[in-house]
Formats: sequence, C-alpha cells, structure tokens
Amino acid sequence: MRGGRPGRERTSRACDDARVRIVALAGGIGAARFLRGLLAHVADADVAAQVTVIGNTADDITLNGLHVSPDLDTVMYTLGGGIHPLQGWGRADDTRNVQDELTAYGAGTEWFALGDRDIATHLVRTELMAAGATLSEATAVLCARWQPRVRLLPMSDDPVTTMVTIADPTAPGGSRTLHFQEYWVRLGAPAALTVTVAGADKACPAPGVLEAIADAELILLPPSNPVVSIGTILAVPGIREAVLDNRRAPVVGLSPIVGGAPVRGMADRMLAAIGVPTTAAAVAQHYGARAVGGLLDAWLVDTVDAAAVPALTLSGIRTRAVPLLMRDTAHSAAMAAAALSLAAEITAQ
Amino acid sequence: MRGGRPGRERTSRACDDARVRIVALAGGIGAARFLRGLLAHVADADVAAQVTVIGNTADDITLNGLHVSPDLDTVMYTLGGGIHPLQGWGRADDTRNVQDELTAYGAGTEWFALGDRDIATHLVRTELMAAGATLSEATAVLCARWQPRVRLLPMSDDPVTTMVTIADPTAPGGSRTLHFQEYWVRLGAPAALTVTVAGADKACPAPGVLEAIADAELILLPPSNPVVSIGTILAVPGIREAVLDNRRAPVVGLSPIVGGAPVRGMADRMLAAIGVPTTAAAVAQHYGARAVGGLLDAWLVDTVDAAAVPALTLSGIRTRAVPLLMRDTAHSAAMAAAALSLAAEITAQ
Repeated sequence: MRGGRPGRERTSRACDDARVRIVALAGGIGAARFLRGLLAHVADADVAAQVTVIGNTADDITLNGLHVSPDLDTVMYTLGGGIHPLQGWGRADDTRNVQDELTAYGAGTEWFALGDRDIATHLVRTELMAAGATLSEATAVLCARWQPRVRLLPMSDDPVTTMVTIADPTAPGGSRTLHFQEYWVRLGAPAALTVTVAGADKACPAPGVLEAIADAELILLPPSNPVVSIGTILAVPGIREAVLDNRRAPVVGLSPIVGGAPVRGMADRMLAAIGVPTTAAAVAQHYGARAVGGLLDAWLVDTVDAAAVPALTLSGIRTRAVPLLMRDTAHSAAMAAAALSLAAEITAQ
Repeated sequence: MRGGRPGRERTSRACDDARVRIVALAGGIGAARFLRGLLAHVADADVAAQVTVIGNTADDITLNGLHVSPDLDTVMYTLGGGIHPLQGWGRADDTRNVQDELTAYGAGTEWFALGDRDIATHLVRTELMAAGATLSEATAVLCARWQPRVRLLPMSDDPVTTMVTIADPTAPGGSRTLHFQEYWVRLGAPAALTVTVAGADKACPAPGVLEAIADAELILLPPSNPVVSIGTILAVPGIREAVLDNRRAPVVGLSPIVGGAPVRGMADRMLAAIGVPTTAAAVAQHYGARAVGGLLDAWLVDTVDAAAVPALTLSGIRTRAVPLLMRDTAHSAAMAAAALSLAAEITAQ
C-alpha cells in the first residue's frame, strides 16, 4: 500500500504501528462475509493489517424497548464466530422462546425475528445506553467479548434512520412512509417511491470514524447495498468528504450487483428509487470516478459483468472482473485478494 | 360473609356484584399456592367470590435494565398456569439462553436466575413502564394474558425496596446494607441486623388498593413472610389503616411458621431482625388482636402448633389448628376452607 504516488506518504502520528491501515464501510451480510474473507486473506498472505469497519446504523430499530443494531451485529457475530451460518444474521444455535412469549402477550414484532441469544446482545447494548453510554461505547463493550479482529465503529452515535416511501392507495396522499426494517423485513421490499435517511443531516460521525478514514491506506466499499448501507454511511456529514480528502488511500469497491440483480437483498428496489439501473456498471457510475470528484479509484465486477470493464476503465475507474459470489470464505478471500491487488497497482503508480 | 354483625352490612356501591369480596395481601410462593387453593375451594364449594390480591413489590429489582417483580409474577404465573411446578417461581419449561449470553458478556447477574420465557414478561413490563405506564397498568396488561382469576394489584406504583443490613467486619462501620434479593438469593440470608423498607414512607397505595380493602367482606393474610412480604405491604401508608377501618371484614391470617421454622424462605432471619420469635404464636402476636388495635380476628396454625391455640384465643385471636403444609392444591384448598369457615363464624356472631 505504501508507494511513490504523491500525497500517499504515511502520516507521522500513525508511524508507531507498522500495520496496513484499511477502512471498510459496511452494511450487513454481504460486508460481513467479505470482511471475513479479507481477514482470512491477510492472515494467509502474512499481511499485517489493521482493519477499521465503519458500520451502517440506519437500519437500527427499537423493538420491545431494545436497541437493535442489525448491521453492527452481523459484522460482529460473523467476524467473532457467533453468526448463524446459513441465514447470515442472528446467532448460531439460537432459540426463540422470548419472542414466542412476547407474541403470547400480544407484544411481539412477529415480522422481526429476535433469537434468545441475540436478545442478550440487545439487552447489554440497551442497558449501557440507558446508563449514558454511546452506541460506540456499547459496541466496544460487545466487541470485547466477540473479538472480531477489526475495530468496529458505528457510522454515528446519533440516531439515523432509513425511511422508505411506498405507494398505498388507501393512505392519505396515496403513499406511506415506513422504517426500513418494516419495508424490507415485514413487507418484503415492494416497489419504493423514495428513500430518505432521517436524522442524517444532524448526525455526526462517531468518534474515530473521520480519523480512521484520514489515516487509512486503503478504503474498501464491500459488496453492500449502495443506497441503504454504503449510501447511508456516506450521508453522515463529513464521511464522504473525509474519503475524498484522503488522497493517499485508493478507494476500491466491489459490486453488490451481479448479472443485473443483487446477490441478496433489495438493492434493485432501492436503486430504482434513486434512479440508478441495477447493473454493476451503473452502481460504479453512481459512486463515481475519483478523478472527476467521485469516490472510486477501482471497482470489481463479477465475471458475468466483464463486458462492463472497458467502459468503466475508460471513465477513470480501474475495473476488473473476478468471481463475486461468496459461496465460502475461500471465495470471499479471493475477492479481498483481488481488491488488495488492484489497490497495490494504484499505489505503485 | 354477610351476617348480622353490626357494621358489616355491604356498601351500596358494590351491590351490583353479588360475589363475596375477598382481599388477600400476598408475597410470593406461599401466597400464590394458598391463593390457588382458595380459588379451587371457592370453585368446589360453588361460592361466587371476587378475589383481589395486593402483591408485595418491595422485592422488585432492576436487572439488565429489566423491571422484575418476583412476587407479582409468582402469583400471576401460579394462578395463570404458567409457574414452574417444582421451584415455585419462574416459568415452566423455561430455558436459560439469554442469561448464559449475558454471562458471556460479563453482564449477567449470575445469582439471580432469569429464564428466557420469564424475561419476556419483564421486557413487556419494562417497555410499558418506559412508555409511561404505571406498574399497576403493566400488571393489568400482563394479567390480560394469564387470566389469574383474581384482580392482582401491586401494593404501590411507587418504588419501595426492602433493604437488609448485615454484619460485615470488612465494611466501614462493620455492617453492609443490601437489596433484599442480594441478601436472600445471593447470600442465602445470613443473620440480619435490621430490615428497612426504603421508599415506603413516600409511597402511595396503588389505585384500587384502598378501595378493595374498604369494600372487602373478608381480608386474608396468606402464609407469607410477616416482615418482607405482608410487612412491606402494611408499611405503605394507608394500607394498614384501611384494614383496621374496615370493621365489616374479618381478618384471617395463616401462619407461615410451622413447628418453629418457616415452611420456606428466611422468615426466621427476618423475624429475628425485628425481635419476634420464630413461632406461630409470636407472629400472631406481632400482627396483634383486632380487639386491641391489631390486625387479626382469626389465625390458623399448623396442627404441630396446636398448643398455641388456647393462649392466642384468650388474647382475642380466634385460632384454630389445621394442617398448613401445602403439598398440593387439595391441601391448600383445605386451608382456604378452614380460613373461610373461621371468617363465617366471626361474621355470624
């Protein structure tokens, strides 16, 4: 990562740590699986890396008085070895007794599954925050147990919430605005009219976020939702600017769109709501080329989207086609290796 | 219950309900099992009864941000059919996954067992109270599910907490004051120096408590702890006075002490702390005869304590010896029948 490109010399204050400083902006499952591959790759390749993950909190929701942070937990559980291996969220070997009882009281949120072990995480977080801790501080306490081998920072300690507006002929005005979780988990992501990030304009980046970006030698955009994961992180004032201001660190993204469809989730609905086609190329153009004020130095598309490589490269985004389906950790490690390889090419220029 | 004794005519405002109005002051397991017997007896005997239970809340404790009301829940679960049959508290068929996880986070209260199903109750209560509901209102919501066939009222919606002081040579001043649950559950009830009921002086009876007592045709003191269950209820200003003021309703108590020892729990320690011997007779004298300003019209002791009957009767407390060990519902129903029989004798006078 350390090369001769002007402005990419390391800052003096981080010189006591010889590890390569990598920052990733992360949503949930896609990011978590990619990051697991990244950690596997740097371990295999004997690269000393310090990874800071800036996690999306705009999906956070309060259920039965519990502060639930789905994306932070998915990253923490995945990297800490506690994730449910098949569903990709929630805890392995979990039970559903608390929620069954909440339902018996008529107090459950049936459409949002809370496992018993998972609830313990939310209880600890909620108790800490009720006692005055920030979400960052609560996250650090939870990570002290899980040891995810990354520094996991929420994007903000302030409440930020993705809201989705859908058509509803029965509602006044013909539309209805919902919490993202209700839109996605309860309704299964119908066509969306607009997506807004409530509270983003008044939110501050969490402590350490801007510093980590400023100090980074590589910034990764994992294959997360460009609108409601990466997009919400970038909507916190100061974060996008910090990425743009760090001219030393290449920004390498991985397409969450493969063959014209999201690998998982509802990115197609969200992209449509902001007028972006559901293609790997369109998402890259949405992020934009660094040379013309956008975010991306480089972009990885799946091999099925290889046809997009020349045009994107021409537009100033160094693009490569590699397999992007994360069937196991070996696959995601190979994706991480490809991302680091692209970054090294840029740094060596 | 309706007899010719002066002053025991029914009040006009309750005349639309022909059921016998019974009030019981209740602690946890002992009261709950007795009340289960009471309901079985009145059903068997075809007595239409409306039972109001005024539950002790001075054992309530906040654990991991959850408002736990052990005595209210024990009554609710026992009468609603959800109680763990052997341990007498907590839920039947419960699991311990949340608490195991809290322990893994270093955040659990290992000495206080919270089952997963039980936690759902505390979540519902805590969420309601965080939204502004009183403990009474939260209790009513919980009881809407459990249908305990009694009206269950907390003694107060205000925080009242039993605190126990024990000798501790290592502490400043040589003593240490603990929450009752820590004293009892964590430490196993060592010798106590004093028992205090923090907040009682500023507490108000919960809505309906004084009215239920004033309207009662029979007031029962189940075999609960005279100090930290019945005693704390009576410590709420207005409740003892309301019992004394209702001259129509006989007050019948059942001894929690059998053969010089508590049937369960730590009543011996608590009685010692207030200078009362651990005998069925001493507890009756502690409550006092109604004729001389005390609470009791009548008192049931176990057959092993039959020797105490003459002296107590002479002191103005109509006393009878019957088996007081509640091995099953039939036994506690027989105890309830004996209590109602004593009350009928008094009313018929």
